[in-house]
Amino acid sequence: MGKRGRVYGAIMAGGGGTRFWPWSREKRPKQILPIISNRSMIWETVERVSHFIPPEKIFIVTSRSQAKDLHREVPQVPKRNFLVEPVGRNTAPCLCLAALHIQKLDPEAVMVALPADHLIANRSGFLRTLKAAVGFAEKQNFLMTLGVRPTEPETGYGYIQKGETLGRMNGIPVFRAKAFREKPTLAKARVYMRRGDYFWNSGMFVWRVGIFLAAAEKFLPQLYGEMMTLRAFLGTSREVALLKKIYPHLQPISVDYGMMEKADNVALIAAQFSWSDVGSFAALGKIWPKDKKGNALMEGKQAGRGKILAIDSSGCLIRGEEKLIATIGLKDMVVVEAGNAFLVCPMERSQEVRRVLQELRGKGWKQHL
Amino acid sequence: MGKRGRVYGAIMAGGGGTRFWPWSREKRPKQILPIISNRSMIWETVERVSHFIPPEKIFIVTSRSQAKDLHREVPQVPKRNFLVEPVGRNTAPCLCLAALHIQKLDPEAVMVALPADHLIANRSGFLRTLKAAVGFAEKQNFLMTLGVRPTEPETGYGYIQKGETLGRMNGIPVFRAKAFREKPTLAKARVYMRRGDYFWNSGMFVWRVGIFLAAAEKFLPQLYGEMMTLRAFLGTSREVALLKKIYPHLQPISVDYGMMEKADNVALIAAQFSWSDVGSFAALGKIWPKDKKGNALMEGKQAGRGKILAIDSSGCLIRGEEKLIATIGLKDMVVVEAGNAFLVCPMERSQEVRRVLQELRGKGWKQHL
Repeated sequence: MGKRGRVYGAIMAGGGGTRFWPWSREKRPKQILPIISNRSMIWETVERVSHFIPPEKIFIVTSRSQAKDLHREVPQVPKRNFLVEPVGRNTAPCLCLAALHIQKLDPEAVMVALPADHLIANRSGFLRTLKAAVGFAEKQNFLMTLGVRPTEPETGYGYIQKGETLGRMNGIPVFRAKAFREKPTLAKARVYMRRGDYFWNSGMFVWRVGIFLAAAEKFLPQLYGEMMTLRAFLGTSREVALLKKIYPHLQPISVDYGMMEKADNVALIAAQFSWSDVGSFAALGKIWPKDKKGNALMEGKQAGRGKILAIDSSGCLIRGEEKLIATIGLKDMVVVEAGNAFLVCPMERSQEVRRVLQELRGKGWKQHL
Repeated sequence: MGKRGRVYGAIMAGGGGTRFWPWSREKRPKQILPIISNRSMIWETVERVSHFIPPEKIFIVTSRSQAKDLHREVPQVPKRNFLVEPVGRNTAPCLCLAALHIQKLDPEAVMVALPADHLIANRSGFLRTLKAAVGFAEKQNFLMTLGVRPTEPETGYGYIQKGETLGRMNGIPVFRAKAFREKPTLAKARVYMRRGDYFWNSGMFVWRVGIFLAAAEKFLPQLYGEMMTLRAFLGTSREVALLKKIYPHLQPISVDYGMMEKADNVALIAAQFSWSDVGSFAALGKIWPKDKKGNALMEGKQAGRGKILAIDSSGCLIRGEEKLIATIGLKDMVVVEAGNAFLVCPMERSQEVRRVLQELRGKGWKQHL
């Protein structure tokens, strides 16, 4: 079960949030949005673990432009726990930075790494899984990853194949992670589901900081070396300047690709909860409550504003904010008003909103980014 | 050619403009909108005939709620020439009212009746047709209607079958109107086109006021009788009160159905211009200039506002006003922002916007009507 005092959280909250444009913006990324409840995703993430990891033991790694807004969302997390990356360099540098800070406080700490913007439908199942993972990681020298049993042949996730059973912790099985697979084709995803020994890679990890940093040293020696120059200056006035010097030269690489796929001490614990990375409007459409015609509708928060009139429309995701949105005869469409913009596209193409952002940048229409 | 001093215009401008919601509103109907140019349709209509019928000889029949806004659009038409109907009762009462006023000024006047909100692409052809019709109507006791040669099997228009040739005026053929047909099925419309003796009923008429009022007396005796009680009070302070008393009891009936279909002195002159009643967003989409992918786009009038980004979209009509509208992968869709509302629907269903209005009335969301 682990001594609670030794468990620390590292929340990865640097995402640019381009996939929910125009709702998400450069300065208002997904983790700040109330897209799965009436609270922001970062708040949900912090709140979800707060009875297991108190806010003062949670570090939030983010960017300069988001730090202030994030802190406003979760003021219970101390300001000093916000670790600001000068530029985003994917998850390996991000988690190394958090690991250094945690190691400084407790060299024997267990670190729980969580994305800031995922949906977890079942909190108690989630906490049971986390506690078991922590219990396992405390005793064994494994990098642990939380694997989610697939409920559909999703092509938007990475998959992890389980190997031999390493044991059980609080009744939850832990396996050796045998192979990591990139986002598959639909045909392959169907095979994975049928076989039953593949799990979705949730991007949530548990490990002792020492075990993690040892893996970093072994598989990402350059990153490790750069980070080591930081160690002596953590929490001092020089840290910011050093980060600014180091970060731009770091290779952007994910923990999965850079370490988990290469290490032989990787374990998978079977998540006891349902999960989504909520990576597109289509994913969001599956999560929101539906009307009788399968429409996921979100009206404006202010009285009388952002009303929706979906006539003879089905399977749509419609989000209003200020103006009335009337639709007639739409099927499986995304219609979103947010701020100074409006998006209309078929549900199945909602991941292409990044093309809008490319065009906006190309045209220099910064007020819409 | 007609003595110009004897030619008067009657513009029917009472339409509620429900078909262009949310652009058109109860208080901002189609005839006031700049939908086919950067001037309002009523302005286009008055301007188009102004070298043939001077504004002081043009009467505009409209409703109380629209009179002021219309006069603002066409200040060249004297205020006294705006005839206000207390309620709309279709075209027969509307044109009777105008005919009475015109008759009072000149019992031998030729009256040109025009809808306020139609598109006429070729002004000189239009004026040639009008002048020929006036010339014919001056000499012969006919109710004349302007027929447009169909360019496609349109199911949204009424059709008129031509009969024997009555003659030519200024080289333009005039036929007896043999039969009026309501809006046909597509199969029937195709037959009409193939036969070549059917014309679109444009809803534009030319007649001497006496001939018209005689037909009203014969075919709509009740309407005629009520209108006669008005005659002595035209232009006096009692006219408004009398109109308010008479109008609510009048049967709503069109000139076509109430008189033209029944009279045996109806002539059709072959219009020398292309025409559209611009009755839906789909019709408007055909008229607006297109981009390379067949999209009809209208951005906001204010700099930087109402921009449009149509990515991989074709055959759409998109109108922006304030917010950026971004679309991905849309085909033949209508996307319109106007005031406090947005509409999204397939082009082929754009005539169903009236369902939105019904729902808005049902819900009491008056601010959107």
